Amino acid sequence: MWSLYPETNDTVPSLVVCASLVENLVNQAALCRTCEVLGVNRLILPELDGSWEFRKISASAQQWQTLDYCPPDQLQGWLAQQQDYTRIALTANSQAQSLTRHAFAARTLLVLGRELTGIPTEIEAQCQATLTIPQYGRVESLNVHTAAAISIYEYNRHWR
Amino acid sequence: MWSLYPETNDTVPSLVVCASLVENLVNQAALCRTCEVLGVNRLILPELDGSWEFRKISASAQQWQTLDYCPPDQLQGWLAQQQDYTRIALTANSQAQSLTRHAFAARTLLVLGRELTGIPTEIEAQCQATLTIPQYGRVESLNVHTAAAISIYEYNRHWR
Repeated sequence: MWSLYPETNDTVPSLVVCASLVENLVNQAALCRTCEVLGVNRLILPELDGSWEFRKISASAQQWQTLDYCPPDQLQGWLAQQQDYTRIALTANSQAQSLTRHAFAARTLLVLGRELTGIPTEIEAQCQATLTIPQYGRVESLNVHTAAAISIYEYNRHWR
Repeated sequence: MWSLYPETNDTVPSLVVCASLVENLVNQAALCRTCEVLGVNRLILPELDGSWEFRKISASAQQWQTLDYCPPDQLQGWLAQQQDYTRIALTANSQAQSLTRHAFAARTLLVLGRELTGIPTEIEAQCQATLTIPQYGRVESLNVHTAAAISIYEYNRHWR
């Protein structure tokens, strides 16, 4: 039987990475490259950046990567509209569930935090799970782009 | 029975990341942070870099990360001495074995390539396996630091 809503089919992989809170241009552009290479369906950036630096760091991936824009002050409202995705907050908090043990939903929206302060409580509250990457060192956390790359790879293990 | 050579014990995790060929300071410093956070036992850089920029990008991880140095022109000789490690070349070549299917040895030495030209043939020939990260986009490859971070994470899934 045909589904009336094929776009919400829960076995068709669709990964959205939300970098609305990511502030650093280098991280945004690096994310763009990584998302394109790893097959991310949509990347959300805080705003359009057409600079030479962005294009250089992203290896011109912005030509191919589907991008949307959401300024951080509109993120709460935007997230509230994403009910057909399982929303995952990525954090450096070691109390969160390990990324290695998470069974990703096919339709996953991965929310990244600010470089210094992470994800605000009210945004995390809009997510169904909070994940962390197991860490073994003294430095507080991975860079946000690095953590996102690892998480996308883990999603791909499940669904690509 | 006690082993006379506990340092070659093949069930004790030991991961060495060799970035001797990585040319870009930003990538070297980012690797330093990632290696420290993910528990890499030793990182090999081409040379000592005590600059402010390195410390900033690495989040001062060079304070805690065990570092060794090997200039690229000495890499072949150095690798020949690492017989007690399984040497793995990381490449963007899609013909290589997928990272997701590799059973890592406890004692693994991960060799990274140059940003633009990858790993020279004679260095790859010194490795027992060549691995690649599955890619789905049009951009040619992941950044070398990003690819290394994903590979270290995958090693940790097996051994940490």
